[in-house]
Amino acid sequence: MVLGEFDLISRYFTRPVRRAVLGGGDDCALLALTPGWLLATSSDMLVEGRHFLPTVPPERLGHKALAVNLSDLAACGARPLAFLLALALPRVDEVFLTGFARGLFALADEHGCELIGGDTTQGPLNLCITVLGEVPPAASGHGALLRSGARAGDVLYVSGQLGDARLALEVFRGHLALPSNHFEAVRRAMEQPQPRVALGQALRGVAHSAIDVSDGLLGDLRHLLQASGVGATVDVDALPRSAVLRAQPLALQRTCTLAGGDDYELLFSAPAAQAAAVRAVAAMAGVAVTPIGSIDEQPGLRLCDATGADVADVFGAFDHFKP
Amino acid sequence: MVLGEFDLISRYFTRPVRRAVLGGGDDCALLALTPGWLLATSSDMLVEGRHFLPTVPPERLGHKALAVNLSDLAACGARPLAFLLALALPRVDEVFLTGFARGLFALADEHGCELIGGDTTQGPLNLCITVLGEVPPAASGHGALLRSGARAGDVLYVSGQLGDARLALEVFRGHLALPSNHFEAVRRAMEQPQPRVALGQALRGVAHSAIDVSDGLLGDLRHLLQASGVGATVDVDALPRSAVLRAQPLALQRTCTLAGGDDYELLFSAPAAQAAAVRAVAAMAGVAVTPIGSIDEQPGLRLCDATGADVADVFGAFDHFKP
Repeated sequence: MVLGEFDLISRYFTRPVRRAVLGGGDDCALLALTPGWLLATSSDMLVEGRHFLPTVPPERLGHKALAVNLSDLAACGARPLAFLLALALPRVDEVFLTGFARGLFALADEHGCELIGGDTTQGPLNLCITVLGEVPPAASGHGALLRSGARAGDVLYVSGQLGDARLALEVFRGHLALPSNHFEAVRRAMEQPQPRVALGQALRGVAHSAIDVSDGLLGDLRHLLQASGVGATVDVDALPRSAVLRAQPLALQRTCTLAGGDDYELLFSAPAAQAAAVRAVAAMAGVAVTPIGSIDEQPGLRLCDATGADVADVFGAFDHFKP
Repeated sequence: MVLGEFDLISRYFTRPVRRAVLGGGDDCALLALTPGWLLATSSDMLVEGRHFLPTVPPERLGHKALAVNLSDLAACGARPLAFLLALALPRVDEVFLTGFARGLFALADEHGCELIGGDTTQGPLNLCITVLGEVPPAASGHGALLRSGARAGDVLYVSGQLGDARLALEVFRGHLALPSNHFEAVRRAMEQPQPRVALGQALRGVAHSAIDVSDGLLGDLRHLLQASGVGATVDVDALPRSAVLRAQPLALQRTCTLAGGDDYELLFSAPAAQAAAVRAVAAMAGVAVTPIGSIDEQPGLRLCDATGADVADVFGAFDHFKP
């Protein structure tokens, strides 16, 4: 059976909207924000072979396509409202679409983020989601978390664990083998990242700055430092990582945690005096948060180990245009 | 020279924002709406070979990628605010990017619509733009134009001219030849459509319903009729078309005007009593507007010619998943 474009939209991607004034089916969707709040928005485009492997189960791909966008909202402390999905498909594959929609909507429902529009077309597989959220204005004292707010003396924190997604990628690339239960665990980290939406919102008014870790910790930290005009010291032994990753050689652990990519954890800084508040907020959000270093007045990024000895920075950030 | 992802963004797509609270360079962009107004948003994804030919000059492609999105805002009567651009490129091609950015920003500036974020990645060429605008709420009496507002007795209008884009496509397909000045004219219609942004906004409070004509007049009219629960009669001889198209055989004229695709004109209905207001609004927006038929209580779409004789509807709508 060949489904046309409009049948495809109506079969897989049409659900009644609850929050939006108008969902899909018109030229635009219409959405009301909380009075006085700002719109927060971000787009991420996912391409096969770059952002996901052809082996990914469609349900997980649906989850991930939205998760990476929700992670951007989380990094700003924004409350998710809605999203648009633009989808290029080589052909209408109903098994793919059924699974994709299931994973997509499961995560959307979890975060009260509804599909309000988008586009479908024939073409090489490409998933582009634009997410819409809202944050109070800065004048409220609990405005958006920005990359530019870090100050010398802040403690640097990261949520969850780093590096499992990269470890899974190394297995897919044939660079190493893992027992199947270990592989399943890290593969899930790669294919079904959990955006830290509740944590991000709870950090408003507590943290000074935040960014989501999508291209590897060091690369993203550099963006934060540059935007804030500060430096940082990171204890590479303090980086939170799974038991599976800890069982690997130290050099691989460091590559995966420092320059892994696809972590979708929050990297943020908060004044030392807010340490108890950070712990409380993390407990409330149900997410582990680990202090991993500090923000320094002196520009530049310094890596040390648990003994305080310098560690050479030989780790590059992931860049979609570099091999 | 190989540019990395971040260099590419900073070189071609970073400009200071004027209206947005925060533009690109953070996890999200932040945007304030006019108090009480609604966000209007739409995404369109353009794929080579489907939405544009490899022969399109990059500057025109930059224009068109934004134009098709602005056309969706126009159809809702929304005021453009900002857009996000997600771009997959096979490789970093500086000639392409320079031209693309020039065309994109020229149109963006014309409509006061600023680039506030997006994504770039390596992959088969794909352009996905999400446009953000705003409209007053319905309670204001001049809320968004919707597809669902057409009422029996309304006059049906279309802006500009129909069919030139399709005629150009037929030349590219080798189905016919045109003198070069004629070809240039229709090619420009295909590659540089003018979104009817001013007209759309001016029609709020005047028109009952609107849709943009992107998939061919008949296909889009059917969406409007379905959403409104009404029928229509269209005089196919009244459809506005260029002198170039009028020089073609009548059957081709009808295919191009009724089922051409890529017109990006506004199709709208307004009560007969508003005819003078429609003319005034069109004159103010500097766009021709032509009455082409009427909205009927009886469901279904009837085509007639200038003599009133029935015309058989043998014209399909363009569908991205059908050949």
